[in-house]
Amino acid sequence: MGWGGEGSAQQLLQRAERGVLLYGITPPSLTTTPERTHEIAQAMLDRLEPVALDGLIVYDVDAESDRSADERPFPFMPMMDPADFVEQHLSGWTRPVVVYRAVGKYGEEELSSWLVEADSDRVLSVLVGAASRRQAVTTSLADAYRLTTGLERRPVIGGVCIAERHVGTGQEHQRMLRKQQDGCDFFVSQVCYDLDRSRDLLSDYVYLCRDDGVVPRPVILTLAPCGSLKTLEFMSWLGIDVPRWLHTELSRSRDPLAESYDQCLSNARALIGFCRRLGLPFGINVESLTNRKVEIEASVELAREIGELLR
Amino acid sequence: MGWGGEGSAQQLLQRAERGVLLYGITPPSLTTTPERTHEIAQAMLDRLEPVALDGLIVYDVDAESDRSADERPFPFMPMMDPADFVEQHLSGWTRPVVVYRAVGKYGEEELSSWLVEADSDRVLSVLVGAASRRQAVTTSLADAYRLTTGLERRPVIGGVCIAERHVGTGQEHQRMLRKQQDGCDFFVSQVCYDLDRSRDLLSDYVYLCRDDGVVPRPVILTLAPCGSLKTLEFMSWLGIDVPRWLHTELSRSRDPLAESYDQCLSNARALIGFCRRLGLPFGINVESLTNRKVEIEASVELAREIGELLR
Repeated sequence: MGWGGEGSAQQLLQRAERGVLLYGITPPSLTTTPERTHEIAQAMLDRLEPVALDGLIVYDVDAESDRSADERPFPFMPMMDPADFVEQHLSGWTRPVVVYRAVGKYGEEELSSWLVEADSDRVLSVLVGAASRRQAVTTSLADAYRLTTGLERRPVIGGVCIAERHVGTGQEHQRMLRKQQDGCDFFVSQVCYDLDRSRDLLSDYVYLCRDDGVVPRPVILTLAPCGSLKTLEFMSWLGIDVPRWLHTELSRSRDPLAESYDQCLSNARALIGFCRRLGLPFGINVESLTNRKVEIEASVELAREIGELLR
Repeated sequence: MGWGGEGSAQQLLQRAERGVLLYGITPPSLTTTPERTHEIAQAMLDRLEPVALDGLIVYDVDAESDRSADERPFPFMPMMDPADFVEQHLSGWTRPVVVYRAVGKYGEEELSSWLVEADSDRVLSVLVGAASRRQAVTTSLADAYRLTTGLERRPVIGGVCIAERHVGTGQEHQRMLRKQQDGCDFFVSQVCYDLDRSRDLLSDYVYLCRDDGVVPRPVILTLAPCGSLKTLEFMSWLGIDVPRWLHTELSRSRDPLAESYDQCLSNARALIGFCRRLGLPFGINVESLTNRKVEIEASVELAREIGELLR
């Protein structure tokens, strides 16, 4: 492995001053054998080797059946626990790793013992609440944040921010500030296709911090190419807003993957320039929304190109 | 003069396939002496000489007191008739010139005699209706279009398109198609700061044309730098939408002119790429929203830089 092993969780946040690059993955499904899981993890790391990544993100995917009354465009497959996946299969990865925790899935004890045991030098944790208010949860997001404050060696904690939610409520920036006061050290955005909505949220957040005399936390902005109508439909199911002209282009294009790739790259360029001008520490996180090979390959190439923009 | 005199009105529209560059000016106020008017016109042409312009636009500014209940941020000064200004003071300009006609100000006879007498080889005319439905008009826009259809040597006729209106009605693209059926040969947009709204309109217009088997007409997209809070306020009075993050940046910036300049250039780049990809004939029109020297100079430099992008 050529990773070199540099970089702690704290250093990742510090490097966000200049902009960091992350790549987001989901663990394989629960039914995958350990041998196959290991192969998948190794293939992923091999594929990512040419990319100048500062960290990996490993998602904790929930069925989110309450998210929408519409049918989930891709059927939900229960996935391996992200923390187990990291521990058992990503030992070849020695840079920081951000592990998502859909806190509603875990009991308080289970959650806090993981938070204590996680290698806080290298593991960051993003705490995610329910997708809707109707979802029955074991631990609420507020309880999870409360849990972390009592811990002696707590990992670096992150939260989710959603520009689309800001359009409706106009309060997502205040919500970010409250999470920050509860102990949130950084934020990761939902996949961004509507650049102005993301910029509105970032701008409101930065100026709210500035006016309150608070230092803004790093915000990691997520981008993902979209290779088909089905993926576009899935984005809509996930609540990702796509400007109408772009929706039309992607729907009518013979090559939506190339169109969306160009758009993601152009959005990355705009967001990098915007965060630097705002003085907001930031990162770009790239992921594939599906496990289709062409989308995964495009997302890796996108991450590589964004890495060059960040230099 | 180094203009060379090339280019007819028809050639301007043909060159829009590759993208044309225009610059928009307003005639001096009615109280200006002929000598001073001539000096102003000459200074304007001198200033524009380094810019690779395909045409000039001369506006017909109306008081538009019905536009908004709010006070006009810059007081309205009655201006010289744009056609008289072109005829008497812009003889040094031998390329195409687009003359605006706020049709509500003129009687039908006055309007049609001008349309007949204008040098249709070089003069294009944009017909503009009332700013609001409450405005008392002498000739309606529909009547003006009807007038042109009977003329033997009518100039090339243009119409206005407004992306902001499309947000509310969702029908601006259909309105464009109707104007086109009434004899409109090209469109000029209002000043664009909300890129996605402009792209939504252009996308809806192009695909409506395509689905109806109609060739889309050239759309000239207008950009203008904004050098102060007062100009920003004027933009809002004019009904120009500015994304919230950009409004914040311009309001809080120590150098709003530089910020808005960068944004206009980046919007120009995006619009040029977008129109080319859509296969929509287009142009970029640059103007200064006020007669402040710094804004005029920035607008000329902006036009020069956009000219290089268009090559």
